[in-house]
Amino acid sequence: MKYHFKNRPNREITNQEEILRLLKNGKYATLSLCKNNEPYIVTLSYGYDEQTNSLYFHCAKEGLKLDFIEVNPRVCATIIEDGGYIANECGHLYKTLVFWGSIEILSDFDKKKEAIKILLNHLETDTEIKSEKLKSSFSLYENMVVLKLTITELHGKAGR
Amino acid sequence: MKYHFKNRPNREITNQEEILRLLKNGKYATLSLCKNNEPYIVTLSYGYDEQTNSLYFHCAKEGLKLDFIEVNPRVCATIIEDGGYIANECGHLYKTLVFWGSIEILSDFDKKKEAIKILLNHLETDTEIKSEKLKSSFSLYENMVVLKLTITELHGKAGR
Repeated sequence: MKYHFKNRPNREITNQEEILRLLKNGKYATLSLCKNNEPYIVTLSYGYDEQTNSLYFHCAKEGLKLDFIEVNPRVCATIIEDGGYIANECGHLYKTLVFWGSIEILSDFDKKKEAIKILLNHLETDTEIKSEKLKSSFSLYENMVVLKLTITELHGKAGR
Repeated sequence: MKYHFKNRPNREITNQEEILRLLKNGKYATLSLCKNNEPYIVTLSYGYDEQTNSLYFHCAKEGLKLDFIEVNPRVCATIIEDGGYIANECGHLYKTLVFWGSIEILSDFDKKKEAIKILLNHLETDTEIKSEKLKSSFSLYENMVVLKLTITELHGKAGR
């Protein structure tokens, strides 16, 4: 589906490198979900995978977001780079991405482990910490829900 | 409607003063909307009115968010106080509010003007700038859409 996005042309981010930078630099994404026409919102840390143009998340085995995703996997999400409010100018400095896609709950052990690797590489810099976390036992991955959001459409916007 | 929110008890913000502080300190809110079971997300500057427990927003006369609101005024929104990612600890310092309510498009001129006053008082500190902005002409208010989101349910969460 294509949305008729009405960004003012001078506010639209069209530079693909800048879009990639925002996806790689963001630490969390906010997701809009809906079930029976009731909206829900949730904010999660993520890891971005450039190869598949996907975001990975992890969460507990139970929760409102899973209730929504199981009924309707469609999601619209945002990543915000907040430059702060500009006092006396009635403006806010920001860059945002808004994107659409479907969320998949990963069940395969190897895929879950690969997703956690992507998450750790995205969020952490210390290689020792990363490899230590990855050595986690089978049961830890078993008790963790891993989500994959594949982006199908994306818009970037910069404003003040 | 009451949601069965599964926050870990030690993460829930129950202190009403802290919730009020977060509502008053936030500069923008992210809204989840839905139409025909399709989710949409939008981030907007807001002004909070304690008396009516409402958030006010303004926007242009056309746009995707209005298409959604006109079909389904139900909204779930979030305000995030971002303390930043904690490197080497796989944690993120944050406080968030997640709340539900309905959005109303204000049409009455005086109500719109009052809403803009609340917005300006929330966002700006300089009294001269505020009164100057409020003196705006009738036509400016005519061409501006003002939205009122009345909170019906709210949860606060703090984490790392």
